[in-house]
Amino acid sequence: MNFSIYLPPQAEGGDVKLPLVYYLSGLTCNEQNFITKSGFQRYAAEQGVIVVGPDTSPRGVKVPGDDESWDFGVSAGFYLDAVNEPWAENYRMGSYLNKELYELILQAFSNVVDPERIGIMGHSMGGHGALVSALRNPGLYKSVSAFAPICNPSACPWGVKAFTGYLGEDKSLWAEWDATELVKKYDAPPLTLLIDQGSSDKFYIEKQLLPENLVEACRSSGVPVILNLRDGYDHSYFYISTYIGEHLAFHSKILKA
Amino acid sequence: MNFSIYLPPQAEGGDVKLPLVYYLSGLTCNEQNFITKSGFQRYAAEQGVIVVGPDTSPRGVKVPGDDESWDFGVSAGFYLDAVNEPWAENYRMGSYLNKELYELILQAFSNVVDPERIGIMGHSMGGHGALVSALRNPGLYKSVSAFAPICNPSACPWGVKAFTGYLGEDKSLWAEWDATELVKKYDAPPLTLLIDQGSSDKFYIEKQLLPENLVEACRSSGVPVILNLRDGYDHSYFYISTYIGEHLAFHSKILKA
Repeated sequence: MNFSIYLPPQAEGGDVKLPLVYYLSGLTCNEQNFITKSGFQRYAAEQGVIVVGPDTSPRGVKVPGDDESWDFGVSAGFYLDAVNEPWAENYRMGSYLNKELYELILQAFSNVVDPERIGIMGHSMGGHGALVSALRNPGLYKSVSAFAPICNPSACPWGVKAFTGYLGEDKSLWAEWDATELVKKYDAPPLTLLIDQGSSDKFYIEKQLLPENLVEACRSSGVPVILNLRDGYDHSYFYISTYIGEHLAFHSKILKA
Repeated sequence: MNFSIYLPPQAEGGDVKLPLVYYLSGLTCNEQNFITKSGFQRYAAEQGVIVVGPDTSPRGVKVPGDDESWDFGVSAGFYLDAVNEPWAENYRMGSYLNKELYELILQAFSNVVDPERIGIMGHSMGGHGALVSALRNPGLYKSVSAFAPICNPSACPWGVKAFTGYLGEDKSLWAEWDATELVKKYDAPPLTLLIDQGSSDKFYIEKQLLPENLVEACRSSGVPVILNLRDGYDHSYFYISTYIGEHLAFHSKILKA
């Protein structure tokens, strides 16, 4: 598994522990898209924040059918732990992200990472991954934000396809990996969800993302949520590059508080 | 031929004529690399500058041998007019850029482009193209800058290969497409050359770029030149994205003066 890590200038010398933010990418991506297209480095350098970018699925293992579609299998791991065969052995991105990689980063970069100041963000499928990771693991991530996240995968075509394939037909299991469902029973340290959404995003218009469902669930259960609807923006990295500085400032403010 | 054009918010309505800057890309690129990787849009929007990105060679025509190497033929047109066969008919990027595309842009975007305020910049092979285009066509470009340009192609391996292939063995013809040679006889409207160079750029270290030759020629002939040597930077778009804002501000200041 590849991942990227960005160490800001403040990490040089290694005598100060810095905040760290994970960035989870969307469908079809690997860890490279964000580092070449988002322009996050300038803002991470300004804020003194370490940024880690995992891959989007297992790589280097062949599971039958893993390359038949762009929204399932390779580069479409959905940051969950599959239980359905033939995916259950390898497609465990939930555990990879929140246990294996999380602990590896703390160990390998123990001289510069502050383990008490870790946040998570993501885009589209990665926005889903960020929200679900934060909501399922209270306290592991102190801040969370998402660009155009898949907010209610149990209720959209992408999510239904992925959850059926990875998790099977049991809807109660789906709810454990669905941000809108998780918010309804969230009872843990206060956490503000920052959601960003372009109003001209075709996947938003086609009801793949459903931020309205997440916002409604947050309001009914008292979880703080900020929804920034960005007039005219689409689903692309041009959109992310426009607002990535705002998101890193949001994380930085919470993590340095 | 594809090209990109970025119209900043100030162009909406079409009642103000804006400055325009051409950006010429380097070897292996097409018009997409700059728009996805440099992050220029934020700065062009701030400055109110239109940005046009041409391709790097003819496309869609098959010339024998045009895809045998990455530094000659397709995506390596060197922004000159070939005279050697089999290149002379199609590989005329100099005329394409400074006549055909230049006039097309003025006509197609006549409502927003100010024809008196046009600048040019580029990276690597495109830095060479920007410098040569400005020096060969006095007054056509009011401002010029370059990231890690091939400053003296007659004296580096990339340039010798390209010039031999496109222009033949006559060195006096080479001098007409070599910024360092053109500077020595430049006698036209004052023009300050802004050259940016990363100190850890492997092509700089390997003497493909030779900014020192251009600076020496500028000094001996009284052409103003600024050389910014950037400690530790390489040849990549990460480097460009760091300083693209400075370059657009440089152009904007001259073009709005």
